[in-house]
Amino acid sequence: MIQAEILSVGTELLLGNIVDTNQAFLSAELAKIGIAVYHRQTCGDNRERLEDAVRLALSRSELVLITGGLGPTYDDITKETVASVLQLPLEENAAVAEKLRAFFAALGREMTPNNLSQALIPKGAAILENDWGTAPGIWIEKDGRTVVMMPGVPREMKPMYRERVAPLLQKRSGVVLHSVTLHLYGIGESDVDAVLRHEMETGCNPTIAPYAKEGEVELRITAKAEKIEEAERLCRETERNLFAKLGQFIYSDRDRKLHEVLIERFCRGKNTLALAEGFTGGKMAAALCQTENAFSVFKGGVVFDPENAPEAVFGSGRASDSPEEYVLHLAQQVREKFQTTAALAVIGTLDPEKATAEMPFGTGVIAAVYRDRKICRRFQFSRGIKEKEYLRTLASLRSMATLLQITGLFCEKPPEKE
Amino acid sequence: MIQAEILSVGTELLLGNIVDTNQAFLSAELAKIGIAVYHRQTCGDNRERLEDAVRLALSRSELVLITGGLGPTYDDITKETVASVLQLPLEENAAVAEKLRAFFAALGREMTPNNLSQALIPKGAAILENDWGTAPGIWIEKDGRTVVMMPGVPREMKPMYRERVAPLLQKRSGVVLHSVTLHLYGIGESDVDAVLRHEMETGCNPTIAPYAKEGEVELRITAKAEKIEEAERLCRETERNLFAKLGQFIYSDRDRKLHEVLIERFCRGKNTLALAEGFTGGKMAAALCQTENAFSVFKGGVVFDPENAPEAVFGSGRASDSPEEYVLHLAQQVREKFQTTAALAVIGTLDPEKATAEMPFGTGVIAAVYRDRKICRRFQFSRGIKEKEYLRTLASLRSMATLLQITGLFCEKPPEKE
Repeated sequence: MIQAEILSVGTELLLGNIVDTNQAFLSAELAKIGIAVYHRQTCGDNRERLEDAVRLALSRSELVLITGGLGPTYDDITKETVASVLQLPLEENAAVAEKLRAFFAALGREMTPNNLSQALIPKGAAILENDWGTAPGIWIEKDGRTVVMMPGVPREMKPMYRERVAPLLQKRSGVVLHSVTLHLYGIGESDVDAVLRHEMETGCNPTIAPYAKEGEVELRITAKAEKIEEAERLCRETERNLFAKLGQFIYSDRDRKLHEVLIERFCRGKNTLALAEGFTGGKMAAALCQTENAFSVFKGGVVFDPENAPEAVFGSGRASDSPEEYVLHLAQQVREKFQTTAALAVIGTLDPEKATAEMPFGTGVIAAVYRDRKICRRFQFSRGIKEKEYLRTLASLRSMATLLQITGLFCEKPPEKE
Repeated sequence: MIQAEILSVGTELLLGNIVDTNQAFLSAELAKIGIAVYHRQTCGDNRERLEDAVRLALSRSELVLITGGLGPTYDDITKETVASVLQLPLEENAAVAEKLRAFFAALGREMTPNNLSQALIPKGAAILENDWGTAPGIWIEKDGRTVVMMPGVPREMKPMYRERVAPLLQKRSGVVLHSVTLHLYGIGESDVDAVLRHEMETGCNPTIAPYAKEGEVELRITAKAEKIEEAERLCRETERNLFAKLGQFIYSDRDRKLHEVLIERFCRGKNTLALAEGFTGGKMAAALCQTENAFSVFKGGVVFDPENAPEAVFGSGRASDSPEEYVLHLAQQVREKFQTTAALAVIGTLDPEKATAEMPFGTGVIAAVYRDRKICRRFQFSRGIKEKEYLRTLASLRSMATLLQITGLFCEKPPEKE
């Protein structure tokens, strides 16, 4: 198994100005093609420490992927530093220089000399063309080690990895890893751990690992084989075992979130959805809109201050109703306005100053309507938690799970016997 | 200056199952109290490699912060491994054991023996009480090195760092760093770089560094001093210089995003806002709702499929109007329904199949209305970019900037002369 190491370069990372998402992306992508990441490092734009980091990586990992520090500014030193560690001179690459000139000409902007520095390439290195920005990636092989340098901006790095780097690495790795992630809602991590302890401790291929996510648990099954078909078969076998034990909590067996499952299953049954978000603050609408085919299901939603639901949208009637009656009214109103088969409404108390004995801070009241069915439930989301965004996330998940449950679309089916 | 190192532990990190946000959080927090993070490592749940990582960290950093691997499951090995490297025996801590028992009793759940393993503490170590979960943090001082272990779950780690660890570290560090982040909209990173090249290359206290964010640029000024007042004064001096050169693009001089600036400035002028999001898919509503005092300004919004704007909400009139007239109609409609002083509406083409010559993919049409002012503008957001979420982000920023511009509230004021 090829041992890889990921090195992120950038003082902005060490200052905590941005979260490094590249390491997780590359880790996951490498795992898919059976390349093991045993080490990750982060280093600032400092020549001496970067040299140390590169030397350490080369001493223990045959494949080193470096992101960041390839740009045109004075603190971009990755290329020079790696070239110096590997004792390779830098040379201007004519094709890259030409492409840079064309890029700036097309933008109608003048190319400054610092931009041209992006065309300096270590001798003998291969260029990884950058169709998503200006700094090209670089692939160097020397003394049995491979160093791959890519830009740090995720929008450039990700497609460059997928289109330029992954195909070369896949060829080199003879192993395939296959992972299946089961998404569970309604059960805690330690309960999953208790049920599956034996399988987790004894299983080595596939392995099973639980991860606590916000309000959910994921179970990741990972199998290793020479051929993808065999890895997939191993995963399915384990999956059937897990469905037998925890099936009632499993809402998805692919890497899909609850909102994606909702869109997919509603789409299949030609059902449509409207939202009234007086607690979740647009979180559900934003999540649904990010999903493929969103608008074949999600026809629209209203986001509003629960203390000031606009009468022009929802009509009047707040004063006399209980929260339950009122939230049901809201769900029916948006279903009518957006002409959908189903609707969800959530109201509640997220403003500590507006908390009452009847509705303490963190109380959410959810209504789901679907054809002739309707359900209304009250939940205490806080339990000592004060962060509103987290409470909104919990309420969003609970709302969508409630709707999937009343429509009978919550549970995923286990894979069929072979 | 104290040199710190951050070590994240967890195979799930190296598999890329989750993004590590702890490293960025701790980096930023340490920077605030003048502690320099020069190295970050990530290591899996593997005893041998974790030992190597801890040894490497102790060899070069006087302060080592470790997150993850403190829980009750069999792959949580951080505590044992650190204790073994430091040659300290583990002992059951009676107070922690008692707290664990009480925790499970309160939940009405039985405590399994693996849960009790969380009460094993290296000899001589101090406990960092965990009021947000079960595994306590641990603080060890030995041979001039300090090792701090905290849970990996951000919801537990962050408050534990802030309430238990930061006060102890602050006492130890005699230096204060102060940072000011200027947020710029409407200018690219390389243009900022060109304008400020000289300042960035020659400045050492304060330093100036630009960061390209999605659709924006941030300029970070960082000053070092013994007293916070002196660091702040140094920052203000540099800030005035930057305002003189780039003031027209600077919308905020604190760590606030455009939507936060909008809420704050609208709140000050007692203005209120409604949204009609037919392009941005609830992104603006979700962002606004995350802001403090959101609902004193943001009265509500409608998220809808731009191809199927609901007549029951917006009335009819689509067919005959131009996109510009139509989006203005939407803005006026939501302003009326939510009874606000201002409104924003965005429609456009994010479905490649619905693209036309008049409205190609990535076209957004924005209307902003504010008292008797109204403006309508068309933007081509795509320019080769295909990811819808990114286009939605760009359109959200452009919409809010447009509204702030017509209300005359866009520009931040420079700090006054001293």
